[in-house]
Amino acid sequence: MTLNQEQIFDVAQLAHVELLSPKLEQSVEFFTKFLGMEVTARSEKSVYLRAYEDFYHNTLIITESDQAGVGHVAWRATSPQALERRVNEIEKTGLGIGWIEGDIGHGKAYRFTNPDGHLMEILWEVDYYDVEESQRSKLLNRPSKRPANGVPVRRLDHINLMTSNPKADTDFMIDTLGFRLREQIQDNGHVLGSWISVSNLVHEIAYMQEPNAAKGKLHHLCYWYGVPQNLYDVADLLKDHDVKIEVPPNKHGISQAFCMYVHEPGGNRIELFGDTGYIITDPAWKPVIWDMKDVPGNGDTWIGTDFPESWWTQGTPLTSNEAVKEEVL
Amino acid sequence: MTLNQEQIFDVAQLAHVELLSPKLEQSVEFFTKFLGMEVTARSEKSVYLRAYEDFYHNTLIITESDQAGVGHVAWRATSPQALERRVNEIEKTGLGIGWIEGDIGHGKAYRFTNPDGHLMEILWEVDYYDVEESQRSKLLNRPSKRPANGVPVRRLDHINLMTSNPKADTDFMIDTLGFRLREQIQDNGHVLGSWISVSNLVHEIAYMQEPNAAKGKLHHLCYWYGVPQNLYDVADLLKDHDVKIEVPPNKHGISQAFCMYVHEPGGNRIELFGDTGYIITDPAWKPVIWDMKDVPGNGDTWIGTDFPESWWTQGTPLTSNEAVKEEVL
Amino acid sequence: MTLNQEQIFDVAQLAHVELLSPKLEQSVEFFTKFLGMEVTARSEKSVYLRAYEDFYHNTLIITESDQAGVGHVAWRATSPQALERRVNEIEKTGLGIGWIEGDIGHGKAYRFTNPDGHLMEILWEVDYYDVEESQRSKLLNRPSKRPANGVPVRRLDHINLMTSNPKADTDFMIDTLGFRLREQIQDNGHVLGSWISVSNLVHEIAYMQEPNAAKGKLHHLCYWYGVPQNLYDVADLLKDHDVKIEVPPNKHGISQAFCMYVHEPGGNRIELFGDTGYIITDPAWKPVIWDMKDVPGNGDTWIGTDFPESWWTQGTPLTSNEAVKEEVL
Amino acid sequence: MTLNQEQIFDVAQLAHVELLSPKLEQSVEFFTKFLGMEVTARSEKSVYLRAYEDFYHNTLIITESDQAGVGHVAWRATSPQALERRVNEIEKTGLGIGWIEGDIGHGKAYRFTNPDGHLMEILWEVDYYDVEESQRSKLLNRPSKRPANGVPVRRLDHINLMTSNPKADTDFMIDTLGFRLREQIQDNGHVLGSWISVSNLVHEIAYMQEPNAAKGKLHHLCYWYGVPQNLYDVADLLKDHDVKIEVPPNKHGISQAFCMYVHEPGGNRIELFGDTGYIITDPAWKPVIWDMKDVPGNGDTWIGTDFPESWWTQGTPLTSNEAVKEEVL
Repeated sequence: MTLNQEQIFDVAQLAHVELLSPKLEQSVEFFTKFLGMEVTARSEKSVYLRAYEDFYHNTLIITESDQAGVGHVAWRATSPQALERRVNEIEKTGLGIGWIEGDIGHGKAYRFTNPDGHLMEILWEVDYYDVEESQRSKLLNRPSKRPANGVPVRRLDHINLMTSNPKADTDFMIDTLGFRLREQIQDNGHVLGSWISVSNLVHEIAYMQEPNAAKGKLHHLCYWYGVPQNLYDVADLLKDHDVKIEVPPNKHGISQAFCMYVHEPGGNRIELFGDTGYIITDPAWKPVIWDMKDVPGNGDTWIGTDFPESWWTQGTPLTSNEAVKEEVL
Repeated sequence: MTLNQEQIFDVAQLAHVELLSPKLEQSVEFFTKFLGMEVTARSEKSVYLRAYEDFYHNTLIITESDQAGVGHVAWRATSPQALERRVNEIEKTGLGIGWIEGDIGHGKAYRFTNPDGHLMEILWEVDYYDVEESQRSKLLNRPSKRPANGVPVRRLDHINLMTSNPKADTDFMIDTLGFRLREQIQDNGHVLGSWISVSNLVHEIAYMQEPNAAKGKLHHLCYWYGVPQNLYDVADLLKDHDVKIEVPPNKHGISQAFCMYVHEPGGNRIELFGDTGYIITDPAWKPVIWDMKDVPGNGDTWIGTDFPESWWTQGTPLTSNEAVKEEVL
Repeated sequence: MTLNQEQIFDVAQLAHVELLSPKLEQSVEFFTKFLGMEVTARSEKSVYLRAYEDFYHNTLIITESDQAGVGHVAWRATSPQALERRVNEIEKTGLGIGWIEGDIGHGKAYRFTNPDGHLMEILWEVDYYDVEESQRSKLLNRPSKRPANGVPVRRLDHINLMTSNPKADTDFMIDTLGFRLREQIQDNGHVLGSWISVSNLVHEIAYMQEPNAAKGKLHHLCYWYGVPQNLYDVADLLKDHDVKIEVPPNKHGISQAFCMYVHEPGGNRIELFGDTGYIITDPAWKPVIWDMKDVPGNGDTWIGTDFPESWWTQGTPLTSNEAVKEEVL
Repeated sequence: MTLNQEQIFDVAQLAHVELLSPKLEQSVEFFTKFLGMEVTARSEKSVYLRAYEDFYHNTLIITESDQAGVGHVAWRATSPQALERRVNEIEKTGLGIGWIEGDIGHGKAYRFTNPDGHLMEILWEVDYYDVEESQRSKLLNRPSKRPANGVPVRRLDHINLMTSNPKADTDFMIDTLGFRLREQIQDNGHVLGSWISVSNLVHEIAYMQEPNAAKGKLHHLCYWYGVPQNLYDVADLLKDHDVKIEVPPNKHGISQAFCMYVHEPGGNRIELFGDTGYIITDPAWKPVIWDMKDVPGNGDTWIGTDFPESWWTQGTPLTSNEAVKEEVL
């Protein structure tokens, strides 16, 4: 009976994300100098990084590319058995690609796409960060010391993808991977955005409508501070060093996140997250459905001024029109 | 094979807690006037309360009693089927008591004790808070408006119980209810304290050694702000109004919680939680084991001065010796 | 020799301000319920209030009136002799009105206007707040306990007046009362705004250009928290209770103030101040001159989105056009 | 008539301080790497530094020395005439030493000691920091960009000296230099500590009783953040990098300062100041007198645990007993 069907607990977390950047070294400098991240490896075209409270070898891979955007998104299963179950389900959808042997920081992974075409993978085997003795913290739940450079982010939080069809991608994540719908924006029944999670956080991934129905775009990647004031500190630092702040510190209504958005030099939008928003522990959570007409001034920014139009419309890679416009500005 | 045994996901959350107070009305005034909580019902000997972001009818019951302490602790299962499975497991341990019909705010519940004798219950059916139209927030994920009195807490967070045998109680929660061990203090292999959870939080419940092996005591109950500064605000308010602050705002090493401890007028210790500490999403989490000799100055207070001896030794109800001492002070 | 002329130290502080309100009781409720202020006296048409760290009997008088706006602004001299000296200087300008016997909370005061016609007074004798024993704080530099209602402001900070001629009013304050120019906005040499002070704060008073050269308007009155997070707390409270937030928490470039603007029910703009900005102790301070073209995005909001046009153009009382527009909205 | 005697406004601010360090380079590394200060000059035995919102060429000089302690303390007069007046007054006390030609960062200065023998100077001519174009901030009231290293302090705040006779030194500063008494600790009429200022801040200098009546010691030097959360950030950073935190973030009752104390590698105590405490603008300020018996738990730490005994008893240079004890620890 559908009503009593139990939840799936087979996906545990967002494990890592690959960003594409046309300005690899400048992108790396942004994450290290200002956000205090650490380079843990380099390959021919990619740089691997982690934040100081990320437990794994890396959570961010930046790969040199013609255009900005997302390379792939990796999910960790809750167990080897869970991994097998999910691969079976993915294969049924026809969106499966196949196993890869692994990469720096993790073992074999199964690759697939969501309906919009974003490349994803699911895996079980990960490498934990192997900290040098001198960088070990006496705080045993912290994998390495707080760095002295920048306003250091603590860990990877979530990703937001733009899609030609938010409903289709949301349904895929729910039906195939066991995500739960937490909040959603609808406009006359049409889904404009979904916030979904496998954990007690409101989202590990969100999908937003790409206004021209372009496929495969990144809206933003988010790293976490957990301290509201740190957003002001990093905003002050970035402003003084000419990094583009698209949205200054602000409180989302949806997810209650204390948020801020900047553009890294490669062009991708990066969110910095200043608290934890709210936590969902109710196992029978009724999704919060926002009618688009109630979103402005409540759902987008509970306390804060309106978001610029670019936040609503623009993902990476930019369409050629947008790219020309950015060039001119 | 034990190594590949999968996790149990049958308990979802701490649903509510019953506190005992010899000064019922003063205890209620503390939670309403200073912490901004709302009385949602009263029965003959009990008062039912909620915080403004608690979704259920109540998360705190204060019951008049000769002595301070904990009445019972209620867990919500993840589904009706999960409830049945857990009741079966509890019954196998011989610690089951039986079903009750329900109480204000929830339906039928199965009662049991942990090995130390703390009374608990597990349930599925809950009543959601039925908010008056005038108290409805435009923030759709907030069940009622932020109150204008006190420095209002947002939701129930966790409970910490003192026990004659932390290892036995920890094992019971893990084996019977599916909790995961997150952090632990050991002294030459003897377990002095455990922080365990069913969610991504470090704990919904902790167990600490009662130094005289007395049974059934409460160490503290915790409500959540999620904003570090709010601890200073409420500490300033409480100090000016002569409420006992046992531990001023401080950062625990264990759990990384930004914390503070006060005594409500009935004598129970209340923790106020100022951030989210850290979040565990790794499905193969290796418990953080602290050797007791490394705890002072790192595990107890990462940034902050030593806790008073009372914090380590004293739960409610007080032993007769402690009660006499408190009287004199 | 002008270069070596010494500073005048005859005015010490902004002592109190009288606001005009067409909705007296609703205005009083705003300041008491949400900002935690206390009513210390009532007269036939006025209510007298103080914040919990204001040392004097009152710092705010709200007087019933047909229209919103400012009644008068009171300055305290640094000594009886300083008072005499300043009255002499004022009389030379032809803007003096004469002595009044005093009011609730202070003794005799000399009344005058600035060139734009805003009514002011200067005085020496003040009544300190006479706190009830039960409201006395153990914190000896705090005149009364922190209140348990609202997010309580701590003290009066500054006032900002709109004027037909900012340069003329700035010069009057500097030449006649001994204010120092701290920051200024100029547009092709025309003064659009001035921030001036007699203390180490950047301003006790600012003057801004009224775009239609209307006279005698109030831009805003400001109370102080000194804690950035408190602006988010009070904004969350006010948003949930339908008070108009014109500018959410934001950082001014000019004065570096962490600021926020709301409209009290009577229609006046109230600023809430979340830190101390920066402090000027250099006795040879070179005024910071902003060219209007550099103000947007740096001088107005260093970290924050643009101010709404209303902030730049609208003071109280509203012109009849503006009032009609507000009515419609 | 004494009662009507007017205040002296001849001293404007604490201009700079010279610290002595037996570990010059390690001391410099502490201030640059962790507190984000900048080295602006070096001489044979000294290093000159500034914080990013210090307007002058330097506010801190660290000089190599056998022992920790304070070299000299420099005050800036409000005008050249004020400088002459104060030198005349100092000379009357017999504590004058004479003029020096100047140093890196300032012109001629008159040197003297207070009764306890601490070396001081008073001056008018200062050099402003000459910022490189690339380091200029668009925030025109900020002399250079916010640095990306450490948790950067904003400006010099105050100094606290230990003395054999707090009353004598307090009286000297009041009578000869025009300081005002803001707060004081007395024990049966004996002055144990004084907080005095020439500005609206509660103190630019404090004097505390050296328990063995040793002369000439430094209690601490203080730099300012103005943001409470920054103390937690820097405490977290320093703890992880093994810098001694003597007092973690805490709120003083006296001055209401949100404070924290660490020991720089040379051995001197450094305070970091997280807000502005409270501001005094009342020109007839009645000093707040604390009876020593009311200080613990109210005057020392309004919200926070007791200070360690070392904070009350130990200045630099250490007495030989203390030094031995530190060696052993």
